[in-house]
Amino acid sequence: MRREGLAIMAAATVTPESFGPAVALSCRECGARTPLAPDFACTECFGPLEVAYELPSGDPEALRAQIEAGPANIWRYAPLLPVPADVATRPNINPGWTKLVKADNLARELGITGGLYVKDDSGNPTHSFKDRVVAIAVEAARTFGFTTLSCSSTGNLAGAVGAAAARTGLRSCVFIPQDLEQGKIVMAAVYGGELVGIEGNYDDVNRFCSELIGDPAGEGWGFVNVNLRPYYGEGSKTLAYEICEQLGWRLPDQLVIPIASGSQLTKIDKGLKELIALGLVEDKPYKIFGAQAEGCSPVSVAFKTGRDVIRPQKPNTIAKSLAIGNPADGPYVLDICRRTGGAVEDVNDEQVVDAIKLLARTEGIFAETAGGVTVGVLQKLIKNGLLDPAAETVVLNTGDGLKTLDAVEPTTGLSATIRPTLDSFREAGLA
Amino acid sequence: MRREGLAIMAAATVTPESFGPAVALSCRECGARTPLAPDFACTECFGPLEVAYELPSGDPEALRAQIEAGPANIWRYAPLLPVPADVATRPNINPGWTKLVKADNLARELGITGGLYVKDDSGNPTHSFKDRVVAIAVEAARTFGFTTLSCSSTGNLAGAVGAAAARTGLRSCVFIPQDLEQGKIVMAAVYGGELVGIEGNYDDVNRFCSELIGDPAGEGWGFVNVNLRPYYGEGSKTLAYEICEQLGWRLPDQLVIPIASGSQLTKIDKGLKELIALGLVEDKPYKIFGAQAEGCSPVSVAFKTGRDVIRPQKPNTIAKSLAIGNPADGPYVLDICRRTGGAVEDVNDEQVVDAIKLLARTEGIFAETAGGVTVGVLQKLIKNGLLDPAAETVVLNTGDGLKTLDAVEPTTGLSATIRPTLDSFREAGLA
Repeated sequence: MRREGLAIMAAATVTPESFGPAVALSCRECGARTPLAPDFACTECFGPLEVAYELPSGDPEALRAQIEAGPANIWRYAPLLPVPADVATRPNINPGWTKLVKADNLARELGITGGLYVKDDSGNPTHSFKDRVVAIAVEAARTFGFTTLSCSSTGNLAGAVGAAAARTGLRSCVFIPQDLEQGKIVMAAVYGGELVGIEGNYDDVNRFCSELIGDPAGEGWGFVNVNLRPYYGEGSKTLAYEICEQLGWRLPDQLVIPIASGSQLTKIDKGLKELIALGLVEDKPYKIFGAQAEGCSPVSVAFKTGRDVIRPQKPNTIAKSLAIGNPADGPYVLDICRRTGGAVEDVNDEQVVDAIKLLARTEGIFAETAGGVTVGVLQKLIKNGLLDPAAETVVLNTGDGLKTLDAVEPTTGLSATIRPTLDSFREAGLA
Repeated sequence: MRREGLAIMAAATVTPESFGPAVALSCRECGARTPLAPDFACTECFGPLEVAYELPSGDPEALRAQIEAGPANIWRYAPLLPVPADVATRPNINPGWTKLVKADNLARELGITGGLYVKDDSGNPTHSFKDRVVAIAVEAARTFGFTTLSCSSTGNLAGAVGAAAARTGLRSCVFIPQDLEQGKIVMAAVYGGELVGIEGNYDDVNRFCSELIGDPAGEGWGFVNVNLRPYYGEGSKTLAYEICEQLGWRLPDQLVIPIASGSQLTKIDKGLKELIALGLVEDKPYKIFGAQAEGCSPVSVAFKTGRDVIRPQKPNTIAKSLAIGNPADGPYVLDICRRTGGAVEDVNDEQVVDAIKLLARTEGIFAETAGGVTVGVLQKLIKNGLLDPAAETVVLNTGDGLKTLDAVEPTTGLSATIRPTLDSFREAGLA
């Protein structure tokens, strides 16, 4: 019943141009193709669906020029995304084109000689990489005629959905565990959409969202991370595009990427491969390293023990935006890190906090806990010899320290308190 | 003694190219000129010093092209700033080129028909416009051979100085009232510089900094908002440049700008006049409107009562980043708002909170209290007929809502709490 309803809705608004170069959804497991629709699981094998393209063929130089003449946001890559060519003219939150910071001070401290860059996604509109994925999901939602934007979230995603819905004039209704910290509730609720607390944990929230999608009450609802997930996920490809363009249309040697569901890491790899296939960058080997918190390290454990199967964990870490105990894309992440010669590593909460402060002290970048995880893992990978300090390395910061102040608060404060006199200043040894 | 010391220090590093097109400091009161140095008060009349230029003459089209080919930050305007031509190649925090958001939803709610834009400076590295002014001050500090970057601050500036010092390898020592909220202390301290709490209020902190500048203990210290103030202030000109370039090299009809010390508003006016003089935009009248909080409204009161003299106030408002009771540039602000046909208006704290939520709900932009002040004042100016809704208007958001969560927290929260069942969902009336 529901499937038919959606198909009718889609028929009303989808044109051959709606999804730009995207031509189908294809199953990542069995390869079966199905038309572009708000579907997320293969009807043949229940594998996850992803977007398949017919990417532009022709002169890479012309495509590079077209991209460089585009806007300073992800829509410069519209020819490589499942969005219409005129996407930049439509109201959206317009994330991306965040800074790629040459991190010479941090490189010196870590002994990296081959060049180190921080891709700093805290510069996005709601200060996390989630704006990238939500922006694409919003375009799909409009195309499919959805009128309510929704998701399950524990923080960053809720804010990104709330903000994007506000800008684009969609209704939003976001579901979170009711016991979330007050600050995170405010950050998500301020955009004026419905914010619903669920009596239960994040798993309960997720289960409820799946039920709602199958119910008439969910008719017209686009869940960015469920029925719009294939489109949503493609937003992460733009991180790969931007890194290479900002390096001067060149692949880095090594990338350190956080793992939550694992989707971001797999899509960055997909983006890099597309750039090579299109001739936009010269082909050469690159290594992808995955980063987890020790308190939620199912992929890291599988990597280290040489297993192909991910054993779910019950998360217990301050890196809450990475705390997915049963990551859907974990097996794909293992494949990519092994195939490219990278690795998966994890750090404990103390190392996460130390890494946040190291990045802030050396580069003036205040990262959220997920950024502490990647920088901490980078440090650990150098120590254990898995990452080459003489090779060019890019490390991702996917969110903003202002969102996880509590992580550094216990160990960050005034250096001294003095009376407003020069004598008091001298006594404190600050001169 | 100190003056000589600084002159010697300066002689060691200052070259004719150090300050690009800047040629002198000039007194805003008496016009007396003095060489470029870390000075801030006229030796003739004690008036404030500002940077004087010999701006590039010649083909505006060529200058526009040069700017457009520059980096996506304030250094694209290096030919118009007191910085060396190669500034973009030196380590700095690289703020600017923030989004100019076409705010059609907000325009509809406010009845603006002439076009409305939000210049959203929350996109800067530490999420406030202070990164712009600090970035220029850092260049001056390096040129003058200062080794410690300092300031007095109650929040945003402390973070901007801490981050910029970290990136550029300068030592930093920032002074704040010791009773600042814990969150603001963390945001400023995380960058690892010295953060010193002063037993006293902000006036005590300021007085102490002035003493320190005159003391041998302050040798080699660059206070961004005191002895580097003439350079620092010029950073705000880039807001004018960006707004006009992002409009397609065109002046808007009306601008709504917050007033703290008033420096930002005067420098935006200076920037607009420079663009006209250089032929980069076509000359036409524009109106500048100043925005204050009712609890700190000395300029607004002077404007409304037709006085030329600003009567200091004791601030009492949630808009703490604007809470300067005796604004140094107040008289200049009055001049500009009167000369251009604008006005100065104020809103109370409740209106500030309402405006923050209005902007978030309509455009997905979460502003700090200062942004609530400008949007609230915009709304009030339309109601009282002082701002023309049929003219093109730009309103500034100078900081990020994540920094002033407490302002909206009491009135922002969950819409509902439900059990994870469809029945509970339906009962809550959310379907």
